Amino acid sequence: MTEQQNRRLGEFELIEWIREQAGTGTHLTLGIGDDCCIQRLAPDQELLTTTDLLIEDVHFKRQWTSLYDLGRKAAAVNLSDIAAMGGQPLSLYLGIGRPTTLDDSQVKELLSGFIYQTRLAGAVLVGGDTCGSPGPLMLSVTVEGSIPCGCALRRDGARVGDSIYVSGTLGDSALGLKHLLAGKEPSADLAARFHTPEPRLELGQWLVAEGLATAMLDVSDGLISDLGHILQSSAVGAEIALERLPLSAAFARELAADRALYDLALAGGEDYELLFTAADSGLEQRNVEFPVPITRIGRICAEPGLRIVQADGTAYTCSKHGFDHFAGS
Amino acid sequence: MTEQQNRRLGEFELIEWIREQAGTGTHLTLGIGDDCCIQRLAPDQELLTTTDLLIEDVHFKRQWTSLYDLGRKAAAVNLSDIAAMGGQPLSLYLGIGRPTTLDDSQVKELLSGFIYQTRLAGAVLVGGDTCGSPGPLMLSVTVEGSIPCGCALRRDGARVGDSIYVSGTLGDSALGLKHLLAGKEPSADLAARFHTPEPRLELGQWLVAEGLATAMLDVSDGLISDLGHILQSSAVGAEIALERLPLSAAFARELAADRALYDLALAGGEDYELLFTAADSGLEQRNVEFPVPITRIGRICAEPGLRIVQADGTAYTCSKHGFDHFAGS
Repeated sequence: MTEQQNRRLGEFELIEWIREQAGTGTHLTLGIGDDCCIQRLAPDQELLTTTDLLIEDVHFKRQWTSLYDLGRKAAAVNLSDIAAMGGQPLSLYLGIGRPTTLDDSQVKELLSGFIYQTRLAGAVLVGGDTCGSPGPLMLSVTVEGSIPCGCALRRDGARVGDSIYVSGTLGDSALGLKHLLAGKEPSADLAARFHTPEPRLELGQWLVAEGLATAMLDVSDGLISDLGHILQSSAVGAEIALERLPLSAAFARELAADRALYDLALAGGEDYELLFTAADSGLEQRNVEFPVPITRIGRICAEPGLRIVQADGTAYTCSKHGFDHFAGS
Repeated sequence: MTEQQNRRLGEFELIEWIREQAGTGTHLTLGIGDDCCIQRLAPDQELLTTTDLLIEDVHFKRQWTSLYDLGRKAAAVNLSDIAAMGGQPLSLYLGIGRPTTLDDSQVKELLSGFIYQTRLAGAVLVGGDTCGSPGPLMLSVTVEGSIPCGCALRRDGARVGDSIYVSGTLGDSALGLKHLLAGKEPSADLAARFHTPEPRLELGQWLVAEGLATAMLDVSDGLISDLGHILQSSAVGAEIALERLPLSAAFARELAADRALYDLALAGGEDYELLFTAADSGLEQRNVEFPVPITRIGRICAEPGLRIVQADGTAYTCSKHGFDHFAGS
């Protein structure tokens, strides 16, 4: 046995450690340790599933983040896809392609962050895979969740006249990344939005329970791109008001000095806020304690395409298109 | 747009192509293209889920295989985990971390093989993810399947006195790999076992339907290692007869010249045969047309550990321990 191997837990020992940490759930007949995990779904529920890859130097840089936060984020961005349908996460699966430079304590740190975020969502880590990677650190995440039959909020339900809402604030994560790319330390608020986004599970489930939303997704590629998916799937157009975009105090401060930062709120990516449409145009003024604030930013129209209108009535043209991790602003 | 980008389909165009190829299933409420796919499970069924990573130069070498066969194998080895519980695969998810050297036609070739194997199993490709990889080609596969409630064949059900059975033949894949590692072309039979293993889905489902097996798994790490999982989970021991191991004609020919090749049948890995225990000691002699031949190789005993007995009654000691892709024989 080489020293390298000595420094590494056997796969089975690691699985045992994970099993102890991972917790359990009433839906779970059999968890980690067999060929498959076995689950039961309540008969009135549908199954939601989503999967994602996260690759070092494509989706994250290890010098910018603790492995604990990386584990949290890997879980969170996938949980956000369950939130985006209005579902409840049940089970998470984590595959780790581990470079030789990642020792056991680092793997455990990564897993601890992943499990923390998983439990926070009321879900359980029930399976996965670890193997060596001759290249970068690679993570694959799968999440299964449940939702009452027929209630999932899809992208194709937006109707002409619907209001468009977004949760939380936009652009913070992208602004945090902009600072990191420039070699500057972002403020704690912005850094947290970039490193440890919060999936908006409660809001998604509340919207399903109230039956208020007609279409929904999470903003991962940027508002313009993701709203574009709703418009295309629903065969409608939209108008949004630039000055209505919800911005954090930290973002607004920097925007005051550089109006071009609006592009980050429009197309920055990794917001992980919920973007949804609803017939009710005064939803945010209801006497309801929302799990996270929501803001009406525009409306769905029959005319195809997306128009971004400024306070003076003129159109705003975003110079940033799509979202590419680390492509800079 | 760079030439590199020109040669690559946009992500959305690729998703559209996959959607056309992937087919559909009655269990599927919503397939590719939203935040999650949505499925319904019959109320008398449990959900089986398994996930795996396959990384270039760890699990496969591109110079040895066509991308079509690689796609097939990526699906097959994961479908084998569903077979190992006796389940029916429903939905597959494929994540591709693609190096810049992999052009669109190659990605489609990989996907075509994956989809072929998926459809062969009566399942549907319903989701996934593609992104760039700055290192090796990386695949992540998740499979969901169903099984009648309470019927999944686990590792922990073997009882003292049970017979031990294995399907098909052992060692072929490892012998094929041995030739590849030595720079030799393996025979077509051995190469096929290594490149395009067949998940034993029908046999697994037949065993569940007949209620005959007490414990089961698929032989992916080698007979000794995988039988060890059953023994440990079931808190029993076992005795197997070396000369009873089912071997292909190609394997037997080479074994005649080199008896040490038994180690490949015992610990070679990647057989993807089903290993199961059953109270019935004459199962293979039943007047039944098995989906794949089965062979009784030994029995479960109370005494812990695994004993491999030769025809002359002496113990055989395997000099190969565990299974490491490409570590050689």
